Amino acid sequence: MDFKSELKKRAIDAEEIIKKYMPKEEGYQKTIMEAMNYSLSSGGKRLRPILTLEACRIVQGCNNNAIPFAAAIEMIHTYSLIHDDLPALDNDDLRRGRATNHKVFGEAMAILAGDALLNFAYEIMLKESIGKENPERYLKATYEIARGAGIYGMVGGQVVDVQSENTKIPKEKLDYIHENKTAAMMVGCMRAGASVGGATKEQMDYITDYAQKIGLAFQIVDDILDIVGDEAKLGKHVGSDIENNKSTYPSLLGLEKSREIAKSLIEDAKKSISKVTDDTEFLHGLADYILSRDH
Amino acid sequence: MDFKSELKKRAIDAEEIIKKYMPKEEGYQKTIMEAMNYSLSSGGKRLRPILTLEACRIVQGCNNNAIPFAAAIEMIHTYSLIHDDLPALDNDDLRRGRATNHKVFGEAMAILAGDALLNFAYEIMLKESIGKENPERYLKATYEIARGAGIYGMVGGQVVDVQSENTKIPKEKLDYIHENKTAAMMVGCMRAGASVGGATKEQMDYITDYAQKIGLAFQIVDDILDIVGDEAKLGKHVGSDIENNKSTYPSLLGLEKSREIAKSLIEDAKKSISKVTDDTEFLHGLADYILSRDH
Repeated sequence: MDFKSELKKRAIDAEEIIKKYMPKEEGYQKTIMEAMNYSLSSGGKRLRPILTLEACRIVQGCNNNAIPFAAAIEMIHTYSLIHDDLPALDNDDLRRGRATNHKVFGEAMAILAGDALLNFAYEIMLKESIGKENPERYLKATYEIARGAGIYGMVGGQVVDVQSENTKIPKEKLDYIHENKTAAMMVGCMRAGASVGGATKEQMDYITDYAQKIGLAFQIVDDILDIVGDEAKLGKHVGSDIENNKSTYPSLLGLEKSREIAKSLIEDAKKSISKVTDDTEFLHGLADYILSRDH
Repeated sequence: MDFKSELKKRAIDAEEIIKKYMPKEEGYQKTIMEAMNYSLSSGGKRLRPILTLEACRIVQGCNNNAIPFAAAIEMIHTYSLIHDDLPALDNDDLRRGRATNHKVFGEAMAILAGDALLNFAYEIMLKESIGKENPERYLKATYEIARGAGIYGMVGGQVVDVQSENTKIPKEKLDYIHENKTAAMMVGCMRAGASVGGATKEQMDYITDYAQKIGLAFQIVDDILDIVGDEAKLGKHVGSDIENNKSTYPSLLGLEKSREIAKSLIEDAKKSISKVTDDTEFLHGLADYILSRDH
């Protein structure tokens, strides 16, 4: 497997799935669909749907049942970005080189578009689960997403992140932010994919460990790239963490130690996923990619 | 049945249920729980949980299985109020006589608290449904809520409402707003309650008709009260629709015609619910109450 071209292929597959589930732009409320689809179509790595689909595939041999979940999870990720970019939060004008949602549609519509995407994600997961065999698996899968996205997951992480601006925080608190703001949704989407695939309790535990570790490593690498990254490759301004006096892995532990921790998390993640299946080529490749990525 | 004291009793029951499901205020992310609970505790008629529980009871004889849904639906209602009150939307400082969420916790936290309540509602419904008999019913019930809350329901109505400020709109569009902003969630919560209660297709249709009609009547009465209501009883400023040049039932059709339409909707709603059960005392009383309420 040439990992990079495989990843590209899977991102294209994920794009197709997301497109298929995007709401039609019609009716009196047409503008909200336009606002949702504007942000849904603005690219990104599509890492979360890829993880959802792969978690299902490694336990079940195919990923068909996870398809609506892949679309839904990207909608939840997109809602979180729209709300994060709002003037009251990060106040960002640009996201992936395009104007942010509120810059195009106004603040009121951006707030509602975020709300709409979060809710639409559940609408899709639930609607597509009705009438399937093993309904219990789908209830569990949707719950995994809800848990990952909520106050004991992503929103919890966002809150503490917002409150920690311009303050030096201890490593435990930084870990809480990283583990919840980023890793919790990766855990949620892999557990959801594995759940619809019918994973055993043991498989679920190892998949969870893999997701947690690549999620935390992903965020540590993000912190590192904000110092040593190439603005052109990243498509965003670097150095903002230092400018904003933000506590990060490198600011608390130094660059070298941060790299070591990320590397060790990736090695452990690979070991965990090897306990689920021998068919680990893609997920090992993905773990290595997260460590070595330059954007 | 003395309807008013029965309604009061049921509102107290609903309060207890909501309280039971409120998140504990603890952890690094404690502030978000405080913000959620602040708005969840600010009173209100608790009409939606009451409807959820009653829809289950009339088809199943008890409402136990609908309890988590009753709590969840009030969380969704509360999230919609928090976001509606934001400066970018209605910019309200007061809600039910208390400072609005963003006035107390700031805009960033109010946005996140709304997001958190919407997501937490799903977390509760899904978590509490796992392991129950008839999981399919719970999937359907949760889907009903999602549909009622989303772009083909409440959010759709909010969007068109926001876009229709200061413009004269035709009655069809006003009906779209009323039916979606308000009635869709009443339909969603009654369908959810009926679904966990195991309603037949026919029962579901009549319950839907009842909910749609009392929902629309509720909103028409709201329009009327904004003209003839007593500020002290309503706990809010009256006349804002005229000040904001808002199209309403009375502005389009006059007060008398609006009252007639509301009355006829209520009569039809009562007929529909009588086709589901003979045990209609509460829901007939509620329909009459919606018509005659002065707050």
